[in-house]
Amino acid sequence: MDTDVRDYIDAHAGEFFAALKQWLTIPSISADPARSADVRRSAQWLADHLRATGFETAELWETGTPDSPGLPAVFAQWTAADPAAPTVLIYGHHDVQPVEPLDEWDSPAFEPAERGGQILARGASDDKGQVLFHALGTRAWLAARGASSPPVTLKLIVEGEEESGSTHFADLLRHERERLACDVIVVSDTTMWAADVPSMCTGMRGVIDAQIDVYGPDRDLHSGSFGGAVPNPLHALAGLLAGLHDADGRVTLPGFYDKVAELTPAERDLFARLPFDEKAWLTTAGNSGAAYGEAGFSTIERIWARPTAEINGMWGGHTGPGGKTIVPREAHAKLSFRLVAHQEPAEVAGLLRDFVAQHRPPGLDVAVTVDGPGVRPSFSPIDSPAVAAGRRAMERAFGQEILFTREGGSGPEADLAEILGAPLVFIAVGLDEDRIHAPNERVDMKLLLKGAEAAAYLWDELAAASSQVATA
Amino acid sequence: MDTDVRDYIDAHAGEFFAALKQWLTIPSISADPARSADVRRSAQWLADHLRATGFETAELWETGTPDSPGLPAVFAQWTAADPAAPTVLIYGHHDVQPVEPLDEWDSPAFEPAERGGQILARGASDDKGQVLFHALGTRAWLAARGASSPPVTLKLIVEGEEESGSTHFADLLRHERERLACDVIVVSDTTMWAADVPSMCTGMRGVIDAQIDVYGPDRDLHSGSFGGAVPNPLHALAGLLAGLHDADGRVTLPGFYDKVAELTPAERDLFARLPFDEKAWLTTAGNSGAAYGEAGFSTIERIWARPTAEINGMWGGHTGPGGKTIVPREAHAKLSFRLVAHQEPAEVAGLLRDFVAQHRPPGLDVAVTVDGPGVRPSFSPIDSPAVAAGRRAMERAFGQEILFTREGGSGPEADLAEILGAPLVFIAVGLDEDRIHAPNERVDMKLLLKGAEAAAYLWDELAAASSQVATA
Repeated sequence: MDTDVRDYIDAHAGEFFAALKQWLTIPSISADPARSADVRRSAQWLADHLRATGFETAELWETGTPDSPGLPAVFAQWTAADPAAPTVLIYGHHDVQPVEPLDEWDSPAFEPAERGGQILARGASDDKGQVLFHALGTRAWLAARGASSPPVTLKLIVEGEEESGSTHFADLLRHERERLACDVIVVSDTTMWAADVPSMCTGMRGVIDAQIDVYGPDRDLHSGSFGGAVPNPLHALAGLLAGLHDADGRVTLPGFYDKVAELTPAERDLFARLPFDEKAWLTTAGNSGAAYGEAGFSTIERIWARPTAEINGMWGGHTGPGGKTIVPREAHAKLSFRLVAHQEPAEVAGLLRDFVAQHRPPGLDVAVTVDGPGVRPSFSPIDSPAVAAGRRAMERAFGQEILFTREGGSGPEADLAEILGAPLVFIAVGLDEDRIHAPNERVDMKLLLKGAEAAAYLWDELAAASSQVATA
Repeated sequence: MDTDVRDYIDAHAGEFFAALKQWLTIPSISADPARSADVRRSAQWLADHLRATGFETAELWETGTPDSPGLPAVFAQWTAADPAAPTVLIYGHHDVQPVEPLDEWDSPAFEPAERGGQILARGASDDKGQVLFHALGTRAWLAARGASSPPVTLKLIVEGEEESGSTHFADLLRHERERLACDVIVVSDTTMWAADVPSMCTGMRGVIDAQIDVYGPDRDLHSGSFGGAVPNPLHALAGLLAGLHDADGRVTLPGFYDKVAELTPAERDLFARLPFDEKAWLTTAGNSGAAYGEAGFSTIERIWARPTAEINGMWGGHTGPGGKTIVPREAHAKLSFRLVAHQEPAEVAGLLRDFVAQHRPPGLDVAVTVDGPGVRPSFSPIDSPAVAAGRRAMERAFGQEILFTREGGSGPEADLAEILGAPLVFIAVGLDEDRIHAPNERVDMKLLLKGAEAAAYLWDELAAASSQVATA
């Protein structure tokens, strides 16, 4: 069967790329209010394309409220013939990043160019190319099997606000929970380790932001008259922040690691087999002078699988030119905590409040403000039935072992898993060198076809594993 | 003799206050370039007055350079008949603070008003009233003794830039070291504990300012992609600054306390006898919530006699509204160290550099910049012959025990002692409630007459103690 799938995909590649290029001409920049009609056109284009592919339903779902208008998502469905077949929901997005600086593009961002086996255009990799390969993959499966409907019920939810914070997406998920009901969620919006090191993402860190404000005297005090005899808010804040880590680089909030899913030996082994060049990585890290973090973990493990506490900003007292010998009246810091499964943002915020309350410096007032609900970490255990099925599909497409990665930051993946109550599988063929969010975004055309192939096999694998997947 | 001194001062009080009020009409604001002619007029007025008092020399000394023009000081001399008599140099200043906000003055700042035994005008206490009482005291001594010259050679140096940083004063001292040569320096520019708790200052803290800059990646990094795996400059700086103090509030720079002149039991006892109301003091300290500082010392001891390390300002990363999940590229802090005898500003700067070098966080660059040469602490041991003579003079004037204070910050006193190589004695009758540097500056008229009396006795006491003073 795999040969049939490949033959179909090869035979229809030209058609597929022509369609993708057409879609890529639509400047669906969600962050730019002037482009909202283009975002709608992009959604309409996708709905039309999916209907032409064979989906029984393909419609625009409006988002937002009158006070906070949103941009449309696309929902499509193709129901399996077998009523017992599992339901798979595919997630992606059809909006794109802004394109400035324009003069750094070799060809216009919305005039797709083909060069050296790559398509260059905004959205080629992130995320239109990766949404569209599912349509080709589904057609290939049907052709190879001579079937008229897929072996699983396919649903797609392709949002239009991912590049502007997915503002209304969680509300949409909650509101449409019934129509989105599924057994597994396939996310196609991540990257592989390298073109010759195919891999699957298995988790993304969450985040919670907070601010600490320390208040001392009601005005800046002369340090000659008062220095050394009243508490200094900047000292107190420096002490609080320095106390957030121990000598091993571990976060000291009591209970911070209690819910952390520790890496298994199998995961650590698979991470270690990735060809990671730390020196090259430090160059990409703004020429950082050294790797540094929690003792006992590699750089990759620290970024992907360990939670953090970071000071994002700090200010207080005299910050202008020259000296000013004061005890400042107040001091402030912004913090963010990257979280891993199964940490809960609200719980970590509570731990921070407790920590600050317990270390409240005498004679000062301290306030902790938490920004919003935060983002939950997402996580798919590598030995779960859904991930195992995805890995087999990817191995059939690439003909080699599939390794595992994670990502350090998140989009709406945790909301999908949480609200819809289904496990995540990340099937994607983007690369770090695709220059997403930057000028000259591009995508490897061969890899997009591999994505289509993996998608075709995935319906097989998920149907075969259906009893396991549904109960995972 | 004391009765004769008192009688003379009482008989000439009206004349003295009339002269002072005349001087106070001159707006000698040294910080305001538009007032430089007034500062010169003020110097001229004083020189004329001192010549009329009987000083053989009273002249204006220009300061500054063509590139950095200065304001004139007044130098005067009245040589003792006995060539073996010691030489006393009196220090004060004739320039005054700015007067804004104007609408908070009950009467115009340069139209001296008399109310409730006080003269209200800018400069009444700081420092014209305290310079002028020396002229009255000297005349009283001469009248009481029927002498035509004082028992010590009197020199006055009254600068015109004290309220704008004494910019050119150290150079003037160095340049005129020979004509200013003296055995003891009498400084009349401080305050007593209270009108009914007369006291003498015996030291002032010095200061050295520095900045620490920590540099990490060459741009702000996304904390999702890099957080937890590269060093964060704000963490590193918070750690460095938190490490500047131990749990007892002591500064941790190795060697920081090596040269500190520890308080003697006699000094601590005299400090403890001052009627210090800590609750009221906290109110003046910007309603600070608690006293806090080096363990084992009282609030008064901490401010006057203990060195400090203070963070005056700190900044780095995102400091605007909302969150920004970055590892910031750099972090900065401004620090000042208050110093006590016999700490040297340059040495403390070196200790800070060593400390930062030894705690340099891996993978980050750290720079320490020291602002200027700093200000040396000044210090007069209470058991020194000069201070003992001053204390006896004050006790004769006030008829009660004289206690000791210090001040937390300094003017050019340490330069005077250092450059001229003579001990300091602080004879002054200002009060904390004189509102110096604020609207409605005022001075207690009775206390100015006590100052004149103390000055008269001081020449006696210093002449009597001359052999001790000269070798102290």
